[in-house]
Amino acid sequence: MLTPIHRRNFIKKSSTAVAAIALLPSMVLGLPKEKKARLGFIGVGLRGRNHVTNTLLFPDAEIIAICDIDPNAIMETQNLLKKAGRKAAAVYGKNEQDFENLVKRQDLDGVVISTPWEWHVPMAIAAMNAGKYAGIEVSATVKLEESWQLVDTFERTGSHCMILENVCYRRDVMAVLNMVRQGLFGDISHLQCGYQHDLRHVKFNNGQQPYGGGVEFGEKGFSEARWRTQHSIDRNGDLYPTHGLGPVAQMININRGNQFLYLTSMATKSAGLHKYIVDNGGENHPNAKVNFKLGDIVQTMIKCANGETILITHDTNLPRPYSLGFRVQGTNGLWQDDGDKIYLEKISKTPHEWEPDTEYLKKYDHKYWRESEQVAQGSGHGGMDYFVIRDFIQAVKNRTAPPIDVYDAAAWSAISPLSEESIVKGSAPIPIPDFTRGKWKNAKPVFAL
Amino acid sequence: MLTPIHRRNFIKKSSTAVAAIALLPSMVLGLPKEKKARLGFIGVGLRGRNHVTNTLLFPDAEIIAICDIDPNAIMETQNLLKKAGRKAAAVYGKNEQDFENLVKRQDLDGVVISTPWEWHVPMAIAAMNAGKYAGIEVSATVKLEESWQLVDTFERTGSHCMILENVCYRRDVMAVLNMVRQGLFGDISHLQCGYQHDLRHVKFNNGQQPYGGGVEFGEKGFSEARWRTQHSIDRNGDLYPTHGLGPVAQMININRGNQFLYLTSMATKSAGLHKYIVDNGGENHPNAKVNFKLGDIVQTMIKCANGETILITHDTNLPRPYSLGFRVQGTNGLWQDDGDKIYLEKISKTPHEWEPDTEYLKKYDHKYWRESEQVAQGSGHGGMDYFVIRDFIQAVKNRTAPPIDVYDAAAWSAISPLSEESIVKGSAPIPIPDFTRGKWKNAKPVFAL
Repeated sequence: MLTPIHRRNFIKKSSTAVAAIALLPSMVLGLPKEKKARLGFIGVGLRGRNHVTNTLLFPDAEIIAICDIDPNAIMETQNLLKKAGRKAAAVYGKNEQDFENLVKRQDLDGVVISTPWEWHVPMAIAAMNAGKYAGIEVSATVKLEESWQLVDTFERTGSHCMILENVCYRRDVMAVLNMVRQGLFGDISHLQCGYQHDLRHVKFNNGQQPYGGGVEFGEKGFSEARWRTQHSIDRNGDLYPTHGLGPVAQMININRGNQFLYLTSMATKSAGLHKYIVDNGGENHPNAKVNFKLGDIVQTMIKCANGETILITHDTNLPRPYSLGFRVQGTNGLWQDDGDKIYLEKISKTPHEWEPDTEYLKKYDHKYWRESEQVAQGSGHGGMDYFVIRDFIQAVKNRTAPPIDVYDAAAWSAISPLSEESIVKGSAPIPIPDFTRGKWKNAKPVFAL
Repeated sequence: MLTPIHRRNFIKKSSTAVAAIALLPSMVLGLPKEKKARLGFIGVGLRGRNHVTNTLLFPDAEIIAICDIDPNAIMETQNLLKKAGRKAAAVYGKNEQDFENLVKRQDLDGVVISTPWEWHVPMAIAAMNAGKYAGIEVSATVKLEESWQLVDTFERTGSHCMILENVCYRRDVMAVLNMVRQGLFGDISHLQCGYQHDLRHVKFNNGQQPYGGGVEFGEKGFSEARWRTQHSIDRNGDLYPTHGLGPVAQMININRGNQFLYLTSMATKSAGLHKYIVDNGGENHPNAKVNFKLGDIVQTMIKCANGETILITHDTNLPRPYSLGFRVQGTNGLWQDDGDKIYLEKISKTPHEWEPDTEYLKKYDHKYWRESEQVAQGSGHGGMDYFVIRDFIQAVKNRTAPPIDVYDAAAWSAISPLSEESIVKGSAPIPIPDFTRGKWKNAKPVFAL
């Protein structure tokens, strides 16, 4: 992991002075228009290879270079390319800094970054400084200053940065976005979302398999357990806000006519991870002595400029069925994904009674899904992974601004460190910076339009 | 409404010095043991008459006196007594202060108070000062100092005060309480609850009927619209927290080994009530000019001494199906009343999948319900109204401490003014007073045991 000082030096060395440009410029200046999106992939573990697989669906996307310090990940990726009849990619894996060489290639237009969270920003900044589009997995940033670094780099270089928030493309979420835009819920006042996912078998495994089978993490763990679990030791906050927050931010036009103002967060005690270790590894396992800072459930309330509130729930340490817990509510009614139900005054058949949302989701199905259902279905996470990489590829290929941009990456991800700050301060309200520096007032919605 | 100054004078005049006694004394000193609970009812509107009707089910409860300034309410109540073959009750209704004469009667043991919120505390204090048990409808108090007044009066007089929180007795809630106590959820870390009830037709009516038919309130309204709506104009906070908070407070033993520590609240904009007036009364109706302070949705997070968090949602201004939104979650799993579902690790059939809660609620059905289902069913609000008045009558008759006491009334109700304070201060965390003054550390759970 880069220390802050290393990171600062790194950014300084690799930055290139480019005039600051306006919000959402439609073209990156000086780059020739290409017919193909020529891509590099930094991080080709499980998540990165999923992006590679989906990219292979697009004849107008080329996979030029890949980067990973794990030779096995490189091999698996080359196999994917081979099977698809594509050329082998150039390989960068000499050391942890080899991504710096990848981003400098002249034959690249964009870079997809699927690495541990703390590497996202240094890698994205390197790519942007080298004039490449950066597509970053979620969350884009870990620390507040990193959100500013992304924004500053974009404004200095003109290189775009897209946060690859796949849940923005979930079929029900896009249908509800359509309904919000057509006014079915009336004036929106309240939204709920979250990441309620029992990750205990992700945070701990046996070092051989990605999920479960043991209570190891860090150097003895495998895949995400190698790096993700440490965040539960070091931090108490919403570690992973964007799967919920991205979709609801689109519904109320955050950064485009609306803005997050402030938040307050509260955490329960931490009991779930310790119990899991004891239950599965015994009281005498060395990890039974680890103190986890992360409360089992962290809730964050956000107040927005147009008067809405958002509740985000982070719930990853306890046994529970998966749910992102969406709720979208306005003066005409509300939708909840828990239970797949909806109520709209004067539209729902019986006053004060829920209806199943099925017919509504069908009726307001988004164009993306209506037109590309077949190809999307097999792509991972129910199809949404297809659309997120497609939008990135389209932006790269056409040299346009991506529909989810650096300001979204900055604002959505910043909720994580800000929630930590609120909890440290006893649930104090914490102002959320305006990363657009006022430009949100005149910016217009663009996502999936 | 009494002004604060009037109220202070009133308390001074009618207070009786009695030695302070310990938490939950089992007897009120100096009162003879009676075989009957001799009751007076202050406020016999719709809610009060519901309590009268349920009281008539108990041969060991006598209805001695009733008090209301509405002659029609008095007449309806006497009709109920007559139909049940009971003696007519003595009447107090000369003016707004006539309750002071009712509480002084020597032949009364307890008083049930079902009046507008702002009258609860002066009436309860009058009753307690006169040596009577006070049963108060919810919320017990409106202002923070009123919670202290109730506690101080109890400690000075030894007269008990029970908040008549019927939802503590809801069948599913009591079954889940049983499950919590038997450890099925493991170590409890998070609870959710609320009052999500479209009250627009309660806050506005045509002055003739209690629900809807017009957009009048205050002097032109009827029943609750006469007084309740004004709170939505004057206050922005959780106006009605106890239906949700009472039950979950019992589950984590608040005031009996656990304690509320602090809260933070956030409110959406206020749009729902104005829209309702315009939609149903037209833009030119005088009430279309009223500014409502109450945000459409108010959420409050509470941190507890034993590390739990509670989320309360107040949602009464928008069209929606009714739900108290319960969620009870611990290290072994969780229950949600929205959708009637449960998941318990190693007990639920399929890992990570919800089950219907039906079989669990049957298996852990509380003794109260198993034994008295038949008689309870018809009593109002699905039967829970029967049990709440029964527990009050039992305490009065046996001269014992009620299972929900003055400290519960004080703490649960105080969330309302404290949430207002948090919102005024931009969602600042607000300490929640320890109304037991430390006695919570050694007190033991008593409710429904």
